[in-house]
Amino acid sequence: MSTPHRVVIVGGGFGGLYAAKSLGKAPISLTLIDRRNFHLFQPLLYQVATGALSPGEIASPLRHVLQKHRNTEVVLGEVMDLDVEQRRVIMRDGEVPYDDLIVATGATHHYFGNDQWAALAPGLKSIEDATAIRRRVLLAFEEAERETDPVKRHEWLQFVIVGGGPTGVELAGALGEIANDTLRNDFRHIHTPDARIVLIEGANHMLPAFPPDLSDKAAKQLIALGVKPLTGALVTKIDEGGVTYKIGDKEQHIPARTVLWAAGVRASSLGKVLAQRAGATLDKAGRVFVEPDLSVKGHPEIHVIGDLAVFLHQGGKPLPGVAPAAMQQGRYVARLIEKKLRGRSMPPFHYFNKGNLATIGRNKAVADFGKLRISGFLAWFLWVFVHLMYLVEFENRLLVLVEWVYNYITRNRGARLITNDKK
Amino acid sequence: MSTPHRVVIVGGGFGGLYAAKSLGKAPISLTLIDRRNFHLFQPLLYQVATGALSPGEIASPLRHVLQKHRNTEVVLGEVMDLDVEQRRVIMRDGEVPYDDLIVATGATHHYFGNDQWAALAPGLKSIEDATAIRRRVLLAFEEAERETDPVKRHEWLQFVIVGGGPTGVELAGALGEIANDTLRNDFRHIHTPDARIVLIEGANHMLPAFPPDLSDKAAKQLIALGVKPLTGALVTKIDEGGVTYKIGDKEQHIPARTVLWAAGVRASSLGKVLAQRAGATLDKAGRVFVEPDLSVKGHPEIHVIGDLAVFLHQGGKPLPGVAPAAMQQGRYVARLIEKKLRGRSMPPFHYFNKGNLATIGRNKAVADFGKLRISGFLAWFLWVFVHLMYLVEFENRLLVLVEWVYNYITRNRGARLITNDKK
Repeated sequence: MSTPHRVVIVGGGFGGLYAAKSLGKAPISLTLIDRRNFHLFQPLLYQVATGALSPGEIASPLRHVLQKHRNTEVVLGEVMDLDVEQRRVIMRDGEVPYDDLIVATGATHHYFGNDQWAALAPGLKSIEDATAIRRRVLLAFEEAERETDPVKRHEWLQFVIVGGGPTGVELAGALGEIANDTLRNDFRHIHTPDARIVLIEGANHMLPAFPPDLSDKAAKQLIALGVKPLTGALVTKIDEGGVTYKIGDKEQHIPARTVLWAAGVRASSLGKVLAQRAGATLDKAGRVFVEPDLSVKGHPEIHVIGDLAVFLHQGGKPLPGVAPAAMQQGRYVARLIEKKLRGRSMPPFHYFNKGNLATIGRNKAVADFGKLRISGFLAWFLWVFVHLMYLVEFENRLLVLVEWVYNYITRNRGARLITNDKK
Repeated sequence: MSTPHRVVIVGGGFGGLYAAKSLGKAPISLTLIDRRNFHLFQPLLYQVATGALSPGEIASPLRHVLQKHRNTEVVLGEVMDLDVEQRRVIMRDGEVPYDDLIVATGATHHYFGNDQWAALAPGLKSIEDATAIRRRVLLAFEEAERETDPVKRHEWLQFVIVGGGPTGVELAGALGEIANDTLRNDFRHIHTPDARIVLIEGANHMLPAFPPDLSDKAAKQLIALGVKPLTGALVTKIDEGGVTYKIGDKEQHIPARTVLWAAGVRASSLGKVLAQRAGATLDKAGRVFVEPDLSVKGHPEIHVIGDLAVFLHQGGKPLPGVAPAAMQQGRYVARLIEKKLRGRSMPPFHYFNKGNLATIGRNKAVADFGKLRISGFLAWFLWVFVHLMYLVEFENRLLVLVEWVYNYITRNRGARLITNDKK
């Protein structure tokens, strides 16, 4: 009996997990390596950060999701290097050989060379980030409640979010709802709707990936939630006193004690490893340019998918870093490997754009389906529906639905716990 | 207009919160001070530690619970000292004057003079404790899966729980279910039912507060879950290699990489403050002996309730440190203060024992209602029902019910995330 074909997937996000799911019945030996023991439903991470959902509700243990795939082994480990000649993945403590390698380690936020901002303005990529942001936001209201100096109190009620993409818009909208609805009657010395939420975007529109008319609608919906959108504004400085930004030549300062970061994408460190070991070409953000079949040039056995990959479609435009793109790529590579085993080949990867959705708050969202563009309640309802459909394959579906319905009816955010703040 | 009577409650656990709830419509000015911004439903904390529930599902923001009480202010703060002459509560950063003071800061675990064991054998009192235990338990299975040395692998699959009271029994039972059911098909190199769970109790019976026949039934139910109960065993040493204990004169060693602590109760530090400032008498564990009306001797304006208090009933037997006792005491003191304002007095506090319940696992529990003693499914069903009834006054009731039903049907523990383990 010959050894089965060995496939190794690094990363259990949307790309890696969907590749693994699609390969569950293939006559191969599959190893999925991730640093964490769970798959994270990142599109709802901002709901953890704003106290509407608990971490366990948007995460599924990887071992459990892949439990029934007898050809699959899940390894909790951190990949440090690749040996592309010997075809081995080098982990911190051990190594795994492969015949086909799928790299799907994604991207993280970055601070454009201002790494000192990281401590002042946390980003939102992990469960720990989400609970840290939740703690900061809730403590800011607590500090304002206890503060007697009106100037300092005002600073505690100023929130700045840097980055007007989907994550920044979602965070800003959720903060607006927290201040206007959720916490409205909880305090005695402050009036929480007095909180001021400023959303700073460098481009000339919020949600720059959307058509301008939808961006404008999103901005109007944000304003209705008490958010002040600033476009064409570049952040030049963040310190404990607040944020300094520039619009044109004019520099301005917002005093604020809470700054959140939703800008800048940098590829995970395996991009660099692929450049060094396999000669991959990287873009400015460290992402790997891939071939039409999602492989690294000269290495048909190395596949890069999801946010770590730059795939040029439609005459040179790179694919957006969204979950549907990663999932489609995961499924594509799985099929490619299965066909390869049968001596067949695949046509180039083609991205099927199902549309682009961004939510702003309760009853507020925008949706772009090419010619059809909608906003408001219908877009919001679609957003909920699409996200539930994605969750269908995961165990948490039912509970998240219940929680959503419950929060919708009661306008509540029960998970607003301040944790891990012990000194 | 005269200043209203000022009542300060320190601690938002069962005692403090029920006192606050009962005083919600009284013509007073009420301040509830807690270090945390949420009330924790501690009886279900072990379910967070074992991945069945998320932190947000067993915690309610205090501000939200007391939102509608316009006479009430919630303060997030840590009480350091008391000025009983001037009647002021001294916080880390500020102070609050009182006319009546209710101290309900509870108790924590302690290590009988072996504080170095704390890092090796974490206890279960806070949300952070619960997620730390969850991380340890899940990582132990992960380490066993990756370990190739059979001796070391065996050590990773040995779990020792010190303390056979309700918390220890619940933890042991839940670990048994995790090993036998939840994780059974998740790993490829280990057979999780091989895990060995040892529960060490110093008394001669598990659940020493229960009648011996129920203790024996509990022990049998634990054995059915793969737990090995050891009674009459005193722990003499805990180190990274495992636990050493003594039965009689015979010393024995269990090699184990995961040790959990569910023994020993020490009163919170306000007990000592009450002894120094108000002349209160403390028991060995630092708890405050209270008068028949739950006040401190010589200080009718200082009331101590819940786990911090020692109340002698039925001819000198102290009340058990359970939620129903704390809740009844909270309500009693609230009524006492209201009556005092109207120039009336209250009869001494009387504890109404509704019975004693301990759960062991799915379908497994024991219940002691004096003459009526039950065990097995009916006791378990009662346990679920009673806990849901307690949750009725909290917002999370519905979701916890859904989660329970879901877990019951699927034998699942979806919240088994390893978090905060970043190096």
